[in-house]
Amino acid sequence: MSHSTSDSPSPSTAPSPPPRYYWEDFPVGQIREFGRYEVTREAVLAFAREFDPQPFHLDDAAAEASLFGRLAASGWHTCAMAMRMLCDGYLLESASLGSPGLEKLSWAKPVYPGDILRIRLEVLEARAMASRPKIGLIRSRTSVLNQRDETVLTMESFGMFGRRTAAAP
Amino acid sequence: MSHSTSDSPSPSTAPSPPPRYYWEDFPVGQIREFGRYEVTREAVLAFAREFDPQPFHLDDAAAEASLFGRLAASGWHTCAMAMRMLCDGYLLESASLGSPGLEKLSWAKPVYPGDILRIRLEVLEARAMASRPKIGLIRSRTSVLNQRDETVLTMESFGMFGRRTAAAP
Repeated sequence: MSHSTSDSPSPSTAPSPPPRYYWEDFPVGQIREFGRYEVTREAVLAFAREFDPQPFHLDDAAAEASLFGRLAASGWHTCAMAMRMLCDGYLLESASLGSPGLEKLSWAKPVYPGDILRIRLEVLEARAMASRPKIGLIRSRTSVLNQRDETVLTMESFGMFGRRTAAAP
Repeated sequence: MSHSTSDSPSPSTAPSPPPRYYWEDFPVGQIREFGRYEVTREAVLAFAREFDPQPFHLDDAAAEASLFGRLAASGWHTCAMAMRMLCDGYLLESASLGSPGLEKLSWAKPVYPGDILRIRLEVLEARAMASRPKIGLIRSRTSVLNQRDETVLTMESFGMFGRRTAAAP
């Protein structure tokens, strides 16, 4: 599962250098929809067992008696599934340098086994970093929607990206 | 991995009824420290493969060339590990009803394999819900610290809890 920085064959997780998307490629107002993530019962239970073993994420009867109504994915599992869609949708092809954090994460509706999730991504702000001329910051709103077009998660997050202009010698 | 609501033997993930902690048991200003979570290289790679396959979470050479300096856990993995500590520390013994969301999540420092994490939890606000007399809302600040007493993650999150007084017949 590792790859080198040489030209040797690399797994699908390794982006091809050079990146396709730099900081400049995320103009404010840009909206993109992408992704398709099928939520399985097995994955909901496996994530809950490891990270969030509250009864409404593990047990049908407990979930029916809860506010969720039936077995529901951990909110952190929804975040993780969203991250995978963001990676596959554009981050792995980008000059992504990681994220310092986020604001206003809302688990708006439960996510259930059988749901099919997708991403709606809107660029809210693009900010140069005065202290680091090769890096730019993007603030974006990520929405996760299900197959009924319901928004199940929203968050406003920050991403650091390499800049195309500063990256050139 | 399921449990019934009867008195039959249940797995460790099932809280014993009645809950030990209700909404009333989280007074504003309460501070608790708990948890011990050892971050393994295997778990960092497994989480990254499934949910966040960016090179700095999967590959040593790529991580060394990144802002992280060496292989670092996905920020979502840190959230998931924190959630497990919150569950084991008090949520599984509580009348927890889930969370509507959070504010101001900061991945303050990288989390590396070999780190040992713990939780510091401070109650910031306790709010009754006028529309739902049996439920109260708690806003708390969760900090995740490592073995060097560095704060690696902070977040302010909301939790819904059953109320002791309203729960009594």
